[in-house]
Order: sequence, then structure tokens, then C-alpha cells
Amino acid sequence: MLKRDVLRKPKTLYLLTNNDGKLREFRELGASHSLKIAKAGLEKLEIQSSSLEEIATYAALTGYLSLRKPLLAEDAGLFIQSLNGFPGPYSSYVFKTLGNEGILRIMDGMNLRRACFRSAISLVLDIQTIKVFTGEICGSISNKVRGKSGFGFDPIFIPEGYTRTFAEMSVKEKNKISHRAKAFNSMMEWLENNSF
Amino acid sequence: MLKRDVLRKPKTLYLLTNNDGKLREFRELGASHSLKIAKAGLEKLEIQSSSLEEIATYAALTGYLSLRKPLLAEDAGLFIQSLNGFPGPYSSYVFKTLGNEGILRIMDGMNLRRACFRSAISLVLDIQTIKVFTGEICGSISNKVRGKSGFGFDPIFIPEGYTRTFAEMSVKEKNKISHRAKAFNSMMEWLENNSF
Repeated sequence: MLKRDVLRKPKTLYLLTNNDGKLREFRELGASHSLKIAKAGLEKLEIQSSSLEEIATYAALTGYLSLRKPLLAEDAGLFIQSLNGFPGPYSSYVFKTLGNEGILRIMDGMNLRRACFRSAISLVLDIQTIKVFTGEICGSISNKVRGKSGFGFDPIFIPEGYTRTFAEMSVKEKNKISHRAKAFNSMMEWLENNSF
Repeated sequence: MLKRDVLRKPKTLYLLTNNDGKLREFRELGASHSLKIAKAGLEKLEIQSSSLEEIATYAALTGYLSLRKPLLAEDAGLFIQSLNGFPGPYSSYVFKTLGNEGILRIMDGMNLRRACFRSAISLVLDIQTIKVFTGEICGSISNKVRGKSGFGFDPIFIPEGYTRTFAEMSVKEKNKISHRAKAFNSMMEWLENNSF
């Protein structure tokens, strides 16, 4: 039991999520690295914490203890500067309750519209090593809801250097610059360069 | 929050344990590496699992989420071959209930007395990386309880190549060969050679 097989880059990683938009982005990201992303049909246990990394890691470990296959869990959030980082790690909950319109209402009349999307991906390849990879993209909150693709707060987030919101971009376009893609690519780099 | 400071080998590691014998061994092991081992005054949450690594990692992560300081948790067990690995990960519980005498009674008349002590140390330096290190020492179960030092099943375990039980050795002697020392030394090697 304690002897450890040499681990190689897995062919399939299970993603712990109930968000189909997130699954789609991960599948597209995986495809460009010949990595299959499968949906882990498990509940994602989320602790309350101000740290995306802590939330992702607790979810990933508890998911792994049920599934016992190479697994990743992601926690992401939109951090709005003039709202002290709100909704941050509670983005999913706030999206379901207040929605995009709620955020626009809170920010009505605010000139400082800077915000960053952040992603923390926790990878449990096997129980011997758990690693977290992070990514960030900053930009601004739009004045109105724009676009139909993506999910969550994508329709109100305009990445720096762009005029369109994330929801006005295709999955492929968003995956070139997004917080999630940055975290994912940093994970792939680690998977490809480490002997674990 | 997502920017990560470069981590260095910590000066202090918190150990999640209520076992003073274990704490003593860790302190002695740490001292030879100029590493202070402090007792984490927290409850150790232990899941039921056949894997020491899983038990240690869940305990270490939940401990870390309370303490948020570099922390380690160890799970160890005595695996007796002719008892199909019993008591294994439940060694602490079995020691408290059946004790050394109980094991000797179960093994009465058994000629095959081979057994191994195994240790899994899970280290949470920060939430970005969780690593598990393992160690093992094999030997045999004695015919009677011998010795007063150490703890747990030490008085009935004779390491291979020795005639004395672990409980007839000093902490220093046991720390030269034990499962725990092997896991600890493998952790120190990783801490000293990795940039994390």
C-alpha cells in the first residue's frame, strides 16, 4: 500500500463541478493538451473561506476520497475593487441570488469599475501530492449586461485591452486569456515538467 | 491573495497530535535538522480508511484550515502479516482497547510473526502544496511485552536485525531506524531540495 507507482501525466482528469459552462471550458482547454476532462458525478463540498485555494483544495480532497481517481476542483471568483473584493469566493452564490443586474445596481454611479477574475485549480493526482494552480485576469465591470456565451458574471466583465465582455466571446477566445485558462496552463506546465 | 510568496524551509512546523510519545520523537528528529516541532493544540480529524496517507492528509488539511501555519499530521500503523494487516490504520484504537496483550493473545501459537510499522506524514506548508512522505520498517512480533520506552505497540515489535523491541531502545536509537524517521527524513530531503 505504501509503495508508490511512478505517476505519469494522466489521460483523463475528473472535474468536480455542476457548472456546464465551466465543464465546457475545461474540456476545450484539455483538448489542446490531449487530456480528457470527465465530469465527476459527486457533490462538491465547499467550505466558507476568503481563499479560493482553500475552497478548491478542500473540495478536491473530499472529492478524491470518494472517487479515488485523478481529480481537479476549481474555485473562481470576481473580485470588484470598489466593493472590497465582493463577491469574491461567494460569486456563485451571489450570482444565483443577485445576478448580473444586482451587481450593476450596487455599482450604479461608481466610476471606479476595476475588477479581476481569479481562478484556483486544485489537482489531486493521487493522495501523495496535492497542488494548487492560480490565474487572474483584470478588467472592468461594464455598464450593462452584454452577450450570451460563458456563464456567471461573464456578461458584465470586460477584460483589459478589449471592448467586448467575456460573454461576447467564444469559448475559444475566452480560453486564450481567461483566469481559468491561465491556471489550467500553469497546471499543464507542471504536469509536463515534473516527475512528481 | 493569489500572488504567492516564495516559500522557504520553515523554522517551525506544527504537529497535529495528542500523543506525547510521537511528539517526543518528532522533536528529536526535528532537532537534528534545526527544525522546531511545536504541538498544534487542535483536534485531529481522522477519517476511516485503509490508507494511512488518506487519513494523514485529511487530518493535515483540516488542521491547516484551522491553524493556517505550516503543519504536519502523521498516521502510522502496525501491519501484522498473519492477521491480514490488522490493526493497520486502526492501531491507535486497537491499542487503546485490546492493548499489547490482546495482540499477543490473538497471535498465540502462530509461527508466522512478521509485521511492519508504517508511517505516512502529510505536510501542508501552505495551501498551494500538500505532500505525503512514507516510511516502513519490518520485523516481528515478540512473544511477550518487553520494554518501557516508546509508545503503542513498541513493546511487542522487534525490528529486523535486532533482538530488542522498540520499547527497549532509546528515542535516539529508535529514530535511527523507525518508519517515522524514514518518512521524516524523506520530508526533510524534499524540503531541502525543492523550491516548492
